[in-house]
Amino acid sequence: MTDPEKVQYYLEGVPTPETPQPGETPKPWQETRFVGKRLPRVDAYERVSGTAVYPVDVTLPKMLYGAILRCPHTHALVKQIDTQKARRMPGVHAVIGVNTLEADVPWSYKDRVSRRQSKLFDPHCRFEGEAVAAVAAETPYQAWDAAKAINVVYEILPFVADERTALNAGVAFVHEEGNQVSPPEPYGRGDATSGFTEADVILEQDYRTECEIHVPLEPHGCVANWDGDRLTIWESTQGVYKIQSDVAEALKMPLAKVRVIGQYMGGGFGSKLQAGKYTVIAALLARITARPVKLTLSREETYLAVGNRPPANMHLKAGVKKDGSLTALEFSCAATGGAYPAGGTSLVDWLIRDLYTCPNVRTLCADVYINAGPARAFRAPGHPQGAWALEQMMDALAEAIGMDPVDFRLKNIPLYSQARPGQQPYTTTGLRECLETGARAFGWREARDRISATGKSGKIRSGVGVAAGLWFAGGGRPPATIILKLFSDGSVNLNFGASDLGTGTKTVMALVVSEELGVAPEFIQIEHADTGTTQFATPSGGSKTVPTESPAVRAAAISVKQQLIAIAAKDLKIAAGDLYLQSGAVMSRTDPSKRIEIAQLSGLKDRGVVVGIGYRAPNPENKVVNPFVAQFCEVAVDMETGEVRIIRFLGAQDSGRVMSRLTYDNQVFGGITMGIGLAATEARVLDTSQTGKMVNRNGHDYKVPTILDVPDRMISLPIETNDAEANTTGAKGLGEPVTIPTAAAVANAVYHATGIRVTQTPINPVQLCWLLAKHRKEA
Amino acid sequence: MTDPEKVQYYLEGVPTPETPQPGETPKPWQETRFVGKRLPRVDAYERVSGTAVYPVDVTLPKMLYGAILRCPHTHALVKQIDTQKARRMPGVHAVIGVNTLEADVPWSYKDRVSRRQSKLFDPHCRFEGEAVAAVAAETPYQAWDAAKAINVVYEILPFVADERTALNAGVAFVHEEGNQVSPPEPYGRGDATSGFTEADVILEQDYRTECEIHVPLEPHGCVANWDGDRLTIWESTQGVYKIQSDVAEALKMPLAKVRVIGQYMGGGFGSKLQAGKYTVIAALLARITARPVKLTLSREETYLAVGNRPPANMHLKAGVKKDGSLTALEFSCAATGGAYPAGGTSLVDWLIRDLYTCPNVRTLCADVYINAGPARAFRAPGHPQGAWALEQMMDALAEAIGMDPVDFRLKNIPLYSQARPGQQPYTTTGLRECLETGARAFGWREARDRISATGKSGKIRSGVGVAAGLWFAGGGRPPATIILKLFSDGSVNLNFGASDLGTGTKTVMALVVSEELGVAPEFIQIEHADTGTTQFATPSGGSKTVPTESPAVRAAAISVKQQLIAIAAKDLKIAAGDLYLQSGAVMSRTDPSKRIEIAQLSGLKDRGVVVGIGYRAPNPENKVVNPFVAQFCEVAVDMETGEVRIIRFLGAQDSGRVMSRLTYDNQVFGGITMGIGLAATEARVLDTSQTGKMVNRNGHDYKVPTILDVPDRMISLPIETNDAEANTTGAKGLGEPVTIPTAAAVANAVYHATGIRVTQTPINPVQLCWLLAKHRKEA
Repeated sequence: MTDPEKVQYYLEGVPTPETPQPGETPKPWQETRFVGKRLPRVDAYERVSGTAVYPVDVTLPKMLYGAILRCPHTHALVKQIDTQKARRMPGVHAVIGVNTLEADVPWSYKDRVSRRQSKLFDPHCRFEGEAVAAVAAETPYQAWDAAKAINVVYEILPFVADERTALNAGVAFVHEEGNQVSPPEPYGRGDATSGFTEADVILEQDYRTECEIHVPLEPHGCVANWDGDRLTIWESTQGVYKIQSDVAEALKMPLAKVRVIGQYMGGGFGSKLQAGKYTVIAALLARITARPVKLTLSREETYLAVGNRPPANMHLKAGVKKDGSLTALEFSCAATGGAYPAGGTSLVDWLIRDLYTCPNVRTLCADVYINAGPARAFRAPGHPQGAWALEQMMDALAEAIGMDPVDFRLKNIPLYSQARPGQQPYTTTGLRECLETGARAFGWREARDRISATGKSGKIRSGVGVAAGLWFAGGGRPPATIILKLFSDGSVNLNFGASDLGTGTKTVMALVVSEELGVAPEFIQIEHADTGTTQFATPSGGSKTVPTESPAVRAAAISVKQQLIAIAAKDLKIAAGDLYLQSGAVMSRTDPSKRIEIAQLSGLKDRGVVVGIGYRAPNPENKVVNPFVAQFCEVAVDMETGEVRIIRFLGAQDSGRVMSRLTYDNQVFGGITMGIGLAATEARVLDTSQTGKMVNRNGHDYKVPTILDVPDRMISLPIETNDAEANTTGAKGLGEPVTIPTAAAVANAVYHATGIRVTQTPINPVQLCWLLAKHRKEA
Repeated sequence: MTDPEKVQYYLEGVPTPETPQPGETPKPWQETRFVGKRLPRVDAYERVSGTAVYPVDVTLPKMLYGAILRCPHTHALVKQIDTQKARRMPGVHAVIGVNTLEADVPWSYKDRVSRRQSKLFDPHCRFEGEAVAAVAAETPYQAWDAAKAINVVYEILPFVADERTALNAGVAFVHEEGNQVSPPEPYGRGDATSGFTEADVILEQDYRTECEIHVPLEPHGCVANWDGDRLTIWESTQGVYKIQSDVAEALKMPLAKVRVIGQYMGGGFGSKLQAGKYTVIAALLARITARPVKLTLSREETYLAVGNRPPANMHLKAGVKKDGSLTALEFSCAATGGAYPAGGTSLVDWLIRDLYTCPNVRTLCADVYINAGPARAFRAPGHPQGAWALEQMMDALAEAIGMDPVDFRLKNIPLYSQARPGQQPYTTTGLRECLETGARAFGWREARDRISATGKSGKIRSGVGVAAGLWFAGGGRPPATIILKLFSDGSVNLNFGASDLGTGTKTVMALVVSEELGVAPEFIQIEHADTGTTQFATPSGGSKTVPTESPAVRAAAISVKQQLIAIAAKDLKIAAGDLYLQSGAVMSRTDPSKRIEIAQLSGLKDRGVVVGIGYRAPNPENKVVNPFVAQFCEVAVDMETGEVRIIRFLGAQDSGRVMSRLTYDNQVFGGITMGIGLAATEARVLDTSQTGKMVNRNGHDYKVPTILDVPDRMISLPIETNDAEANTTGAKGLGEPVTIPTAAAVANAVYHATGIRVTQTPINPVQLCWLLAKHRKEA
């Protein structure tokens, strides 16, 4: 509890930033007092004490539990379904499925406007884990038992579980018209053929990244409750308004009758950007039973049915001059969105197109269907896959022309976005500084020298690797609306619609308010992520939440400040232009004796609050806002066991202004950890030949990196470009860039240590032992 | 559930009202489609199905129950208190009281700035029911048992329980400095002495109204819960922001750390305008136990400790000319706010000052302390008491000069507010029309003729009575802020801070949105009465909620409409001035083929919502906004048993525009019912001689009118003045005016039937039998 003797709402003695005139664009902050500082999360207490209520914690009176019966086959037709036994089991209140009316709700796995619609309960099950029926019962166990008691007769169909063979003759079709999603659209600029002619060195290589599962700590799930014809859903989601519109569209309801709340949630990484079938199923079960229904997926269900990072099969050919200039890049990729088209190849080629200056580029990405769960956006869709190929190739090219990998990259820093029409410049390009400052901070050259001096011998061998990246988005954009209420004592209520995925969104927004008003973050009450009570926001994803929302928060805070100063100007009989806000009071610049506390402003107690509304302004025209990143790591490889120990990692990132230093660093460490997962531990394993089923559908067999897999030494090095053009807070996206080059940096370090180029994820002992043996054999 | 085939968000074919330019004051509505119609309450389903959650329904995990030990003596000092036994009782988690730290929280019964502070647990108990200690336990029964097990030794002090003797010599002092609250301030205008000289008839009479208890159906109570140092309170209240500031001040907390929610509540009538000691006690118990605590008062506690309409002892002398002109009024009142000064005499003299044209007026109101629970605002503070005196006197004067009581009142209709300086005119004065149209609709003259013809004989005698009134407030005023979110499908979310006491506030506000946007009320989602998520509002009371909030709602809706039209103007490439909203589409006036659905507006889906913010504009300067009322009733009196049967009642009221006809009528019927309570059934009975204690502290002995006490025929007759000056919706206050003249009208009817002037409430068989006997004796 706040000690009243110590209450200090306001930063003592420090004026808040200048207050612009209404309509005027605020100037970038110069020195900050809250923004960018190492201040604790505003919801730290709730998170560590357990009082934070996640959707999985929501418990309503008379609540039932839902369970979904899922198809156990990779590809099958439901021929018969008998729910009689299930309906008679203890505690069961409702059973719905392919044989009930609810099956008719149209459904698309990608989004609500996809051409490829399935049904909510579709008798044609195109992947293992497809929903066939669902039960609501008094307890979760009763619900699961009843779901298992539903008797389904399937006609098992031939399947395809490997995207590399999906287009072969004689392979089973996932959809009637074949396995190609749509004819691939080639990208090209310049003339790759003549580019290769100019090259001194041409290298060519196949790469593959395995399919990853998002594995958020909180499984997908929701609680649905009806009051008459009004539906409330508590959902573990990245975007409450998206859930609202998905559910409203599926159930043909007006938006005003669907309220979605999702204030705490345990991670999403792209897999919780939209409603799931489970969301609509929970709503339907609740409607039928007239009881609230909680439906939380089991961990196994989340492995099968709610998204993945699709596997990518890539081929990259690159030409370079001896001076380090890239002359041509030619890239192809075959990937899969699973049984439903969800961007299998989306953005895999973006870095090849856009990261380095190269006049001649050709790419072709083909997406195919297989009988597996649908892909979903996954922290930097496509980018880590493309980086795996491009950044390993850059490493190889540098070696081939005898350049340092950092120098080689510096040679090809882009001046503008080449992948977009019109040579649009970046508002800021911190890539050079990420590489240079990062290399210096990491001790890149010293480490290279040290390792060269040691020589490539011994059981344990060290290596260092570098990789870079950019994230094609990350500038944020409208719309965003923020409402700020300043109470009569000067404490504040902040209202926004965005979800905080655990990334610190609430903390960042509070710090912006603190910066502008001088009020300490703990005196800011936050309401967010509720379509009923909070303002509109697009889902938190694409590293756009902070650059989208924070300028709107700043605008709202400035509006409050303008109103306070206007009231004070009347009270003090001084021109508003002479007044500024400091330590919870409005003061005169010219006459320090003229001063009035916020709480004393005329009529503020009667007026109750001062309301500020802030909108996100449009982005600059004809400019591109992108974050950049360079990462450096050192590994130690056991040449006998194939174990790779990552010794240390440094991430240098230009994500614009650091808004909250602690959560910023956490994002960096989290991104590196996730990249290590892609590099070294994670891979969905399908039994492609016998059954098509996923064989590692649990936390033991599907290996998410643990504390033992990440280095003790992780360093976050912000490269703070003063991006005044991007938006009024200068923040750019952070969450995604920091995971993009990680896996490639590890692979490059492993190459540096071993001389072995591991082109396929994961670099685990199984693969590395085999490669080491092959290497020894060839040597 | 909404049938998707029948969803009709918008009123077909009817254009919405004209959209003013930004900054322009909207014109009064001409023909309305939603406002004023007989449409069901928007929360009817929740209310009748039981899904509405009142504070008393809030149940949190691990919640404890609180109970308060109250002083059983009228006036006593706590000398010793032993809580050891209570602390050891099963389920008990905390005991606090006069001997613990919590006693030091300063407390005022009136408001947070009153001079007369007590302590939260004050060892000097100045009324029966004062809080001495409190307990939190696992169940309510454990809590009550433990509270009873607290052993308190009291020193019983002499008391005063009758305000009529409070200033007598030798009477016990409630507070150290004596029993007079403060020297009474006389009011005067003109020269009463010469006024009486001019009079042809002078009458003089004592009147008394008894003390009433509010008796809302839901007793006072709350649930308090802490998350770290942040407190959430669910309170049965008329104003969440007032509770927030009361609790924040008592506990010395910043407002941003106190969230108060009070969405449904079961009646207040003025007794729930502020936090109670129980609110702060619940918060403290919750803090000590680190568990949520529910504290609901028993019915008995609400009779003793949370407010009443103070008894009033009045004397009125009036002079009148034969032509019906009032020449002078002289009024005095002695009343009591109980042990703590809460406006015992507040506004009792207002009607004498202001209702009728009279050049010479003198009033004096004295407030004294007695050892009884504090008074509270009670539906039209002071006014029904004053009306009891004035309107009976008007009846008597009319008879004395041989004028019809209606004609006599019409003779003295005021042109401006006489009680306020500056002869400020009323925006509208519907009093004449209330009397004339009301009399016509009631059949006043026919009834008088019929009863005269029958003569005053027989066991059952009929009589008719009239009384009028005004409510000194009822115009509403700033501040009010409204936020409206129009979703991309055209359905709407409406956000306001005001409580809906059951009066239909939500329905009225929804109808305003419907009127402006054409969207049907059922497609409006409402969030209200939550300091965390909704906009600022002053407490719902003083008949000001509708005239305060509804113009702000209209402003917000107009802002949304302006934005929709601006977007459509771009889309259709038509000047905004040529466009209007109809049936969920923006259309051209000049070219009917140019039309665009709201849901199709460019970027609306991406933008997500259109946000409109609306503020309450200031009231007109130098004008007074007051509602007026006239009521007519017919009674049948059993001359043997003294039973009065109220046969029919008609209320004609100028409350400006009728906003929602069904809830409007409900308010009228409720006001009349409550006035019948004052007239005929309700009275707090104190044992003034022996113990000072209240002897009828339950629903059996304290008689709130039931369905059997109110007439079958109640008629609500709106006198709709088109009050374009008052505010943009034209609404004036309703809740209070409709109960002001009721009791006097009944008394006048009883006089008409019996010839007996009952000057003291209640007119129950006990009193009337006695008066009839006396009358027979005297006759």
